[in-house]
Amino acid sequence: MKSTIDLNCDMGESYGAWRMGNDEAVLRYVTSANIACGFHGGDPATMRKTVAAALAQGVAVGAHPSLQDLAGFGRRVIQVSPQEAYDALVYQVGALAGVAASQGARLHHVKAHGALYNMAAKDLELARALCQAVHDVDSDLVLYGLAGSRWIEAAESVGLRTAQEVFADRTYQPDGSLTSRSRPDAMITDLDASIEQVLGMVQDGAVRATDGTRVPLRPDTLCIHGDQPGAEAFAAGIRKALEEAGIEVRAV
Amino acid sequence: MKSTIDLNCDMGESYGAWRMGNDEAVLRYVTSANIACGFHGGDPATMRKTVAAALAQGVAVGAHPSLQDLAGFGRRVIQVSPQEAYDALVYQVGALAGVAASQGARLHHVKAHGALYNMAAKDLELARALCQAVHDVDSDLVLYGLAGSRWIEAAESVGLRTAQEVFADRTYQPDGSLTSRSRPDAMITDLDASIEQVLGMVQDGAVRATDGTRVPLRPDTLCIHGDQPGAEAFAAGIRKALEEAGIEVRAV
Amino acid sequence: MKSTIDLNCDMGESYGAWRMGNDEAVLRYVTSANIACGFHGGDPATMRKTVAAALAQGVAVGAHPSLQDLAGFGRRVIQVSPQEAYDALVYQVGALAGVAASQGARLHHVKAHGALYNMAAKDLELARALCQAVHDVDSDLVLYGLAGSRWIEAAESVGLRTAQEVFADRTYQPDGSLTSRSRPDAMITDLDASIEQVLGMVQDGAVRATDGTRVPLRPDTLCIHGDQPGAEAFAAGIRKALEEAGIEVRAV
Amino acid sequence: MKSTIDLNCDMGESYGAWRMGNDEAVLRYVTSANIACGFHGGDPATMRKTVAAALAQGVAVGAHPSLQDLAGFGRRVIQVSPQEAYDALVYQVGALAGVAASQGARLHHVKAHGALYNMAAKDLELARALCQAVHDVDSDLVLYGLAGSRWIEAAESVGLRTAQEVFADRTYQPDGSLTSRSRPDAMITDLDASIEQVLGMVQDGAVRATDGTRVPLRPDTLCIHGDQPGAEAFAAGIRKALEEAGIEVRAV
Repeated sequence: MKSTIDLNCDMGESYGAWRMGNDEAVLRYVTSANIACGFHGGDPATMRKTVAAALAQGVAVGAHPSLQDLAGFGRRVIQVSPQEAYDALVYQVGALAGVAASQGARLHHVKAHGALYNMAAKDLELARALCQAVHDVDSDLVLYGLAGSRWIEAAESVGLRTAQEVFADRTYQPDGSLTSRSRPDAMITDLDASIEQVLGMVQDGAVRATDGTRVPLRPDTLCIHGDQPGAEAFAAGIRKALEEAGIEVRAV
Repeated sequence: MKSTIDLNCDMGESYGAWRMGNDEAVLRYVTSANIACGFHGGDPATMRKTVAAALAQGVAVGAHPSLQDLAGFGRRVIQVSPQEAYDALVYQVGALAGVAASQGARLHHVKAHGALYNMAAKDLELARALCQAVHDVDSDLVLYGLAGSRWIEAAESVGLRTAQEVFADRTYQPDGSLTSRSRPDAMITDLDASIEQVLGMVQDGAVRATDGTRVPLRPDTLCIHGDQPGAEAFAAGIRKALEEAGIEVRAV
Repeated sequence: MKSTIDLNCDMGESYGAWRMGNDEAVLRYVTSANIACGFHGGDPATMRKTVAAALAQGVAVGAHPSLQDLAGFGRRVIQVSPQEAYDALVYQVGALAGVAASQGARLHHVKAHGALYNMAAKDLELARALCQAVHDVDSDLVLYGLAGSRWIEAAESVGLRTAQEVFADRTYQPDGSLTSRSRPDAMITDLDASIEQVLGMVQDGAVRATDGTRVPLRPDTLCIHGDQPGAEAFAAGIRKALEEAGIEVRAV
Repeated sequence: MKSTIDLNCDMGESYGAWRMGNDEAVLRYVTSANIACGFHGGDPATMRKTVAAALAQGVAVGAHPSLQDLAGFGRRVIQVSPQEAYDALVYQVGALAGVAASQGARLHHVKAHGALYNMAAKDLELARALCQAVHDVDSDLVLYGLAGSRWIEAAESVGLRTAQEVFADRTYQPDGSLTSRSRPDAMITDLDASIEQVLGMVQDGAVRATDGTRVPLRPDTLCIHGDQPGAEAFAAGIRKALEEAGIEVRAV
């Protein structure tokens, strides 16, 4: 069905003396980098280095903003108003846009992190505030959001281009949501099973939910995780399988 | 000698539930606002509101970046490398530029805060890194720095326009530096004495140091403090005196 | 019914250069001080000064721990596990106990702040983790919690002494909970009405809910707010009325 | 000369989602653990786990307080007054004492981290403020400080017991200070050379400075670094060599 797909990865999530992820390695396989902006990880030096590394590899540079929660790595739900969320997005996207500008580059996209990504996927008012923030900073930015979620609806309503995101290593529910990580069948750890799911999503426009239901999806970008053991081999394997299937891997 | 001067004020230095300064009042008298960027004060909501208030008054919007030190309000010397300082500036200027962009505006200038302002006034390598950061984010920005200090030298060397800053409420040393706040004669608290110093600087291009030495200065912008008792009356008095002397008050 | 009551107030909530509240004034009227521990306000210097001021007035020194949220002043709900909450309490109570020890004093009580106070009032598992933390640091501490809430149940279950807290300036619902601040009838701003509610609670062991229902309460400690306009006059008025009614005001 | 020595290691320096060091492994070889207290690393959960792991191995539990600088991992000089330093120590030592108390244990010692350790080694007024803070929280605590430095002088002047610290992997200057890390001969990376230096310090009470000068030292505790590649093998090698030389390894 589709003949192209983007591979994206969250990166630049180190902070100060602490390292996270294997960004240099994963950058060789992906086409979009979602770069942390300081609220859950990613200090200014890490942002500079990660933008430079992405540009050097020809990878599209995007912002990966979060709730303000270094201690919780942006993974904890924090009750914020749409206005607070808007303000936090403007700040973080602006900061990374400054880093990109200082290297003669422009931001390409925005993908929210952790709890914020999950909260807005189900909350249209929150998603709208976040998408409006992205639009108000730079209306050319592409919004990466969970395929079929409120993110896509909100982004379209404010006039942003969107990229529907799917996952290689997560299972799906019949309603198109991701299986909660608290459930034992949430993750796909086998590379072959991941490849099968990915090819199905790209070629057939659908994924099998955990109960067997066929869930239609329109994947524009596929998320690759970079902070797990074997991340590099996983990324390489997915990319190789896509290319062997005649699917072009490129940024949105 | 000069027939125009800019009046600038640091603002947007509240944080979360804590208030500081009387920005709305002072905005009626100044022509440039230096807005905190989150590292010593100024959360994203405060930044949004302060930018909006400045734009509503027709006041030029500038960034007021700092060392990362909420606990010390950016007033403590922190030993940072030029690269760390560069990265911190890019991040903060970018963040405020994002806030301005979200309101359809562009940044006009940058003036560093507290310890960073004082450190770079005497350290050419540090000043150069900071000015390079400003230039790399947006080469149209005007650098506000202590008149006659390393700031001006550094800004010119990287190709930035500059505004030489003078003070109405601080006394000067024979070398053109400000008298240390630890000395009893550091501050001018009398409005008439302040006005006399300001008119001398603007009309004669010079200030009397504490020992009586005549110190030549080329003032482009005059700093008004907004976080002290009587700040509004002080700002109003200075502005009135300037206008009565036929000096136009406008942004650089 | 009762012939004694404690008056408590949250204090030490300044942070760095930012001031909050009028602690010195309010300390003259209260018998228990709940002192912020750095997670929502209260840097180490403020903690030292506030403990010293309370000791100088003979006021009981307690900890006022919070979710870790300087930006939100501890008022935002953050999804934390009972274990995270336990750890945060141990840390903060320990820190303030260290400040007290450095002044030759011991902590007397613990009262949680903001969102954490409200969350645990309705969540027994969370309240138990928090009370267990208090108990594990020092089993002699008194737990101050909303009268009739999960706090009291949890504290008793882990073997802590408790003080049931009531409010002079908040209205109540028929189930004994406080009326949400989002409702127009949440606050009592009239001093006489506050005094009437307080005397009713102390003398009759009951309060009238907003619908007129009589809600039985066993008040041990009455919360006085110190960060509002007129806080001092309010505190003075409440204290005077209690003493004139023959009710002794003293710490639990 | 001496027949006993303590081996200490800084640990608990992870923060939130970020890992640092290999504490579990190194705990098998050391006799004192210096546990980070949240200002440069070490969130409350990490503090709990690290205290528990140290207690499980029978290792003495100490505090490892720092300047407040998560972004710089406590390695950057920050200009603080003696009072600010005092307050920061009281807070951090109190917090870790709370964690220890919650596990039925008491703190044994305090060793400052990074820039604070280095600053106070040369600044008697700062060292005195820090030692006074330790003393005021708990006068039974042992102060670990650089052998022959202001730390020892200050600790003795306020009445604290001291442990003079020496290093296995750092070279020394003729005045007894450590060679600056900016110099190429600062580090000893060869295990045999480290062992030779350590045995010389313990058995002969002296170390050879980089220029060959014999510098007398009275080592009570030897610092083992846990955050470097090969840290475990290094710790094991040092401990084995000490035991083979008939030197008892135990806490101060």
